[in-house]
Amino acid sequence: MRYAVLGTGEVGRTLGGKLVDLGHEVTLGSRSKDNPAALEWARDAGAGARSGTFEEAASSAEVVFVAVGGRVALSALEAAGAANLDGKVVIDVSNPLAFEDGQLRLDPVESDSVGEQIQRAFPHARVVKSLNTVNCKVMVEPTLVPGEHQIFVCGEDAAAKEQVTALLGEFGWPPHRVLDLGGIRSARAVEMALPLWVDLFRHFGHGEFNMEIRSAR
Amino acid sequence: MRYAVLGTGEVGRTLGGKLVDLGHEVTLGSRSKDNPAALEWARDAGAGARSGTFEEAASSAEVVFVAVGGRVALSALEAAGAANLDGKVVIDVSNPLAFEDGQLRLDPVESDSVGEQIQRAFPHARVVKSLNTVNCKVMVEPTLVPGEHQIFVCGEDAAAKEQVTALLGEFGWPPHRVLDLGGIRSARAVEMALPLWVDLFRHFGHGEFNMEIRSAR
Repeated sequence: MRYAVLGTGEVGRTLGGKLVDLGHEVTLGSRSKDNPAALEWARDAGAGARSGTFEEAASSAEVVFVAVGGRVALSALEAAGAANLDGKVVIDVSNPLAFEDGQLRLDPVESDSVGEQIQRAFPHARVVKSLNTVNCKVMVEPTLVPGEHQIFVCGEDAAAKEQVTALLGEFGWPPHRVLDLGGIRSARAVEMALPLWVDLFRHFGHGEFNMEIRSAR
Repeated sequence: MRYAVLGTGEVGRTLGGKLVDLGHEVTLGSRSKDNPAALEWARDAGAGARSGTFEEAASSAEVVFVAVGGRVALSALEAAGAANLDGKVVIDVSNPLAFEDGQLRLDPVESDSVGEQIQRAFPHARVVKSLNTVNCKVMVEPTLVPGEHQIFVCGEDAAAKEQVTALLGEFGWPPHRVLDLGGIRSARAVEMALPLWVDLFRHFGHGEFNMEIRSAR
């Protein structure tokens, strides 16, 4: 499969690296063609790894990962070009997270979400929100954390969620640990779980944890 | 111990009933002296059960539970009277949750929380936020849900958190399953987990679930 990973931070490089290791072709997309992090990644990540602009990455891909910060997700996707997203599965792993004056802020929050913003702005993209509730090491290697902890998916397109569930299986998340929350509106819920993630990060002193939802029946 | 439980809804009555069953004296507090739900509860709940106004409940109590809706928590505590809260452990189990036109809304959210509002308004109360991440059945009977799922506490007063941890032990939460998130600011994180709770409620079709945080180390 041909993937675009938009975003050259740790999340983008980790997702891209895992996809290459799995045998996929990956273009790591950034705002400029000469992004040093992207060039270095493409040089070192393996045979299937390339770098390019957001537009180059999206145009060549069958599936697009949004791995930029949530607050710049729309502008990255606009740079990628709506025509390059039409009909494609767009996996939004972002969080609208910023630290301002040492304070955690989320924007949008509660009345909207990045996942919904993307689906509204690109109505022909098949947006699936997933993976944003764990750090990027756990995203691609869930066995780092013991137990039957889960990953969430939500989105409007059932076939797109199935495709993402299959990819999550390649990452190491078996289908019974992929919890479908429903439509893209549930992006609000998973994005609003971030402050708890941050407090737990402070509690444990590291980011290698996840939640296992236990139910009475 | 003498407890006030402010709020006569299902949460208040369930907490009050459990406290009575544990041998404590409980006054279920409401806005008016003749609240039918409170009178009925006091008649049926057992020897240690009484009902009264918010003020009567708080004045006679050593520990005060805030079990009204989060959006009316401050007005309930104002009715209880600041002098009746001074130096006392105040356990805030509320969520600032409302459904408006079928939409879930949280207010305050992200930049503030009910827990913080209470601590600011009553600086001599020893506020501990806890229990708001599970439904009231699970609050008082955690074994309804399998596994080593946890309950959170946060607040500024370490001794108050210890006292709440001991009470949680009476409810059935052993100390190793009480996860201290830090200061009262973490009330934001646990209150913002509510939309995920609501989506999981929709997913499971019931409210008897909880999260078990799994950590790599």
